[in-house]
Amino acid sequence: MMNFCNLCGGTLSTLVPEGDNRIRHVCGQCEHIHYQNPRVIVGCIPIWQNKILLCKRNIEPRLGYWTVPAGFLELEETMAEGAQRETYEESLARVNITYLHGLYDIPHIGQVYSLYMAEMENAEFGITPESSEVALFDAADIPWEDIAFKVVKLALEQYLQEGRRKDGQPFGL
Amino acid sequence: MMNFCNLCGGTLSTLVPEGDNRIRHVCGQCEHIHYQNPRVIVGCIPIWQNKILLCKRNIEPRLGYWTVPAGFLELEETMAEGAQRETYEESLARVNITYLHGLYDIPHIGQVYSLYMAEMENAEFGITPESSEVALFDAADIPWEDIAFKVVKLALEQYLQEGRRKDGQPFGL
Repeated sequence: MMNFCNLCGGTLSTLVPEGDNRIRHVCGQCEHIHYQNPRVIVGCIPIWQNKILLCKRNIEPRLGYWTVPAGFLELEETMAEGAQRETYEESLARVNITYLHGLYDIPHIGQVYSLYMAEMENAEFGITPESSEVALFDAADIPWEDIAFKVVKLALEQYLQEGRRKDGQPFGL
Repeated sequence: MMNFCNLCGGTLSTLVPEGDNRIRHVCGQCEHIHYQNPRVIVGCIPIWQNKILLCKRNIEPRLGYWTVPAGFLELEETMAEGAQRETYEESLARVNITYLHGLYDIPHIGQVYSLYMAEMENAEFGITPESSEVALFDAADIPWEDIAFKVVKLALEQYLQEGRRKDGQPFGL
């Protein structure tokens, strides 16, 4: 719901700019075009001695459900740095990124969801403002009915069933 | 340069919101937090009979320099769809995406640059408002001194020198 220009405060109109083929929000005062683009989620599947680290969400959406550490990529960081940062912020775990496990399009919510495989540096982890519980799970004990997001469930299934795609490419492509 | 809230028109302040650790633009009136995140570039290296399709840029930045077709991922499309769309918009070529060749972080300009390998469906292509010339190049004829962007030069070099990463992962990780 964009109504005002964040540069000059003018009123925005929705129209197809010259040379474009999509409806954009354009300022009637300074003529700036306000593009909206998908955002990148970065996260990882943290592994410690064959166990998977999961976090129980302490925030909406999906409060109380389990997920892997992941969040929005920030300006001025690489995707791998973002995945490491999110992992620490949500679980206090320090990880080394090993490879890109999956790159999933979620066009209906404007997200590109990237999940790396990662090795935990040690067995240290803990709760955070974002996670009410953090725990290592054996494959057999993953709470499949309580996974927060479809894409995370899919990524975990692909990891457990196939490990890595035979051609080395990320899943989801 | 964000000054005004695009929801309510209020004046934005820069501050670290409670529970956050980064400076954000926050509306003093409706308290909405205006996050800024990297954008995703999608494009491809289009191949026709071992030749590479390049476009001479007819728009800034880097007007007059050669590049592969690529542009901003739009809402409501997948990354592969975006790469196909950009390829058609910039070169009139129809392509089939084969695999993700490279996924490059460009944090200093807030971009994630994704380039697929793609097979052209036929030998048809042509100039567009965005491209003053479009041409197929043998590897030996690529205008290395006139490639528009470092990341594109790198991706082309990696394709010509190594083809595909030995582990199948995208380059750039």
